[in-house]
Amino acid sequence: MVEKNKKEHHLKVQIYYEDTDHSGVVYHANYLKYFGRARETIIGIDTIADKWYNEGSTFAVYKVNINYNDGVVFADQLDIKTTWKKDGDYRVVFFHEAWKTNGTKPAVTCTIEVVWLGPKKQLKPIPEFVFLR
Amino acid sequence: MVEKNKKEHHLKVQIYYEDTDHSGVVYHANYLKYFGRARETIIGIDTIADKWYNEGSTFAVYKVNINYNDGVVFADQLDIKTTWKKDGDYRVVFFHEAWKTNGTKPAVTCTIEVVWLGPKKQLKPIPEFVFLR
Amino acid sequence: MVEKNKKEHHLKVQIYYEDTDHSGVVYHANYLKYFGRARETIIGIDTIADKWYNEGSTFAVYKVNINYNDGVVFADQLDIKTTWKKDGDYRVVFFHEAWKTNGTKPAVTCTIEVVWLGPKKQLKPIPEFVFLR
Amino acid sequence: MVEKNKKEHHLKVQIYYEDTDHSGVVYHANYLKYFGRARETIIGIDTIADKWYNEGSTFAVYKVNINYNDGVVFADQLDIKTTWKKDGDYRVVFFHEAWKTNGTKPAVTCTIEVVWLGPKKQLKPIPEFVFLR
Repeated sequence: MVEKNKKEHHLKVQIYYEDTDHSGVVYHANYLKYFGRARETIIGIDTIADKWYNEGSTFAVYKVNINYNDGVVFADQLDIKTTWKKDGDYRVVFFHEAWKTNGTKPAVTCTIEVVWLGPKKQLKPIPEFVFLR
Repeated sequence: MVEKNKKEHHLKVQIYYEDTDHSGVVYHANYLKYFGRARETIIGIDTIADKWYNEGSTFAVYKVNINYNDGVVFADQLDIKTTWKKDGDYRVVFFHEAWKTNGTKPAVTCTIEVVWLGPKKQLKPIPEFVFLR
Repeated sequence: MVEKNKKEHHLKVQIYYEDTDHSGVVYHANYLKYFGRARETIIGIDTIADKWYNEGSTFAVYKVNINYNDGVVFADQLDIKTTWKKDGDYRVVFFHEAWKTNGTKPAVTCTIEVVWLGPKKQLKPIPEFVFLR
Repeated sequence: MVEKNKKEHHLKVQIYYEDTDHSGVVYHANYLKYFGRARETIIGIDTIADKWYNEGSTFAVYKVNINYNDGVVFADQLDIKTTWKKDGDYRVVFFHEAWKTNGTKPAVTCTIEVVWLGPKKQLKPIPEFVFLR
């Protein structure tokens, strides 16, 4: 059964020189960084640090689907909108959208499945804090 | 009708400090760089430069699906194996696999759909050199 | 004669997975990104975009000196403190410091000399907005 | 006393989309990645991995000086030329140059001081393999 978290999370991302490539738009791999920043913020950066340093456990990206609908350029500001849900005991699915200011649809959309790994990289049930925050 | 290119392309990638993150494995977004290096090599780096500087046209990534099956660590060497096919007049699909030395299955697999854009970012038929090389 | 700008600029940088390497600290090259974000913000991101798209002119990094005094880890938050001065007609020098929360000295310090380039990459006098903001 | 290693090391770097920024040249921070690849190759990637996993010791960049003389663009190929010397018991200095094909002087030059850190991040004498290889 899918437990839907009704919350939605927003993260602002300023596009700097470092984000772009020579064709003038954001390099396609960089969106995964922005979505990663959102997920780390949602799960809780201090919590992730605590679990890593004290238990050796952390999340891992298992599956990624991205659709690129529109280019984003230097000086743009993105609103990264994220929702998420637990899918069974061992998986959380994050739904990310990158919105340009005044955009009428997301420039980029992404679905990412995340699992939780123990200190020996064994699969563990998703801790509550990952999806309940 | 799908025109299958029978060729397969291999690119070696050495994993350096720059590729890893603090959990000890390759940061998940970086595989898109390795697959991008392979596609640019397959299409032809000098050809891409020529089209960009003389016509203002280039390819763009439209859709990405990635599956992460195994972690890759510092000092590993990856073999990026790529096949590709034309899918209609406006799309080429690349199939990437990242193999560790002595791996029995790919550590990461990825399907990427690429389109071709003219100088005003309008969709153009895929040039022959993109898929026939 | 050196014209000293008395202002100082602060930019917060959250350290995410993307910033670290497998040794557990921020990868040394990434500080140049944080300092770049600060400079772009100081010069004015919309102004840089305007100059680039309308004149084809932009700044370029000419010289960099960095000292690494302390490691920075995942979950740390950095305060990037920047001061700057004009040095002659063709050069602005930026002084960056990366401070950890509760740090007693900067973790990283950096001096960066910047020049201004016209559309044919020719050296041009530094525009006022670069150092007077 | 400075012990000069007479050897020089060369590493080829192909410039891909990932390396460039929207101004059309290689993003200034990325040269540190290329120089890092060279140093890791010189010290020995398998040796670094061995020291890290078995002793928890590794090198750390302590000081960086870079001069940017010429822009490098997409499709360029760089020859990273590196020499190095031990400077006292606790420091090795690497001299990196990035040469474009047919260049008459290096596009970028860089001096990097490296130290060796034990498992508790304490300074240790530079191991022989770092500078004698």
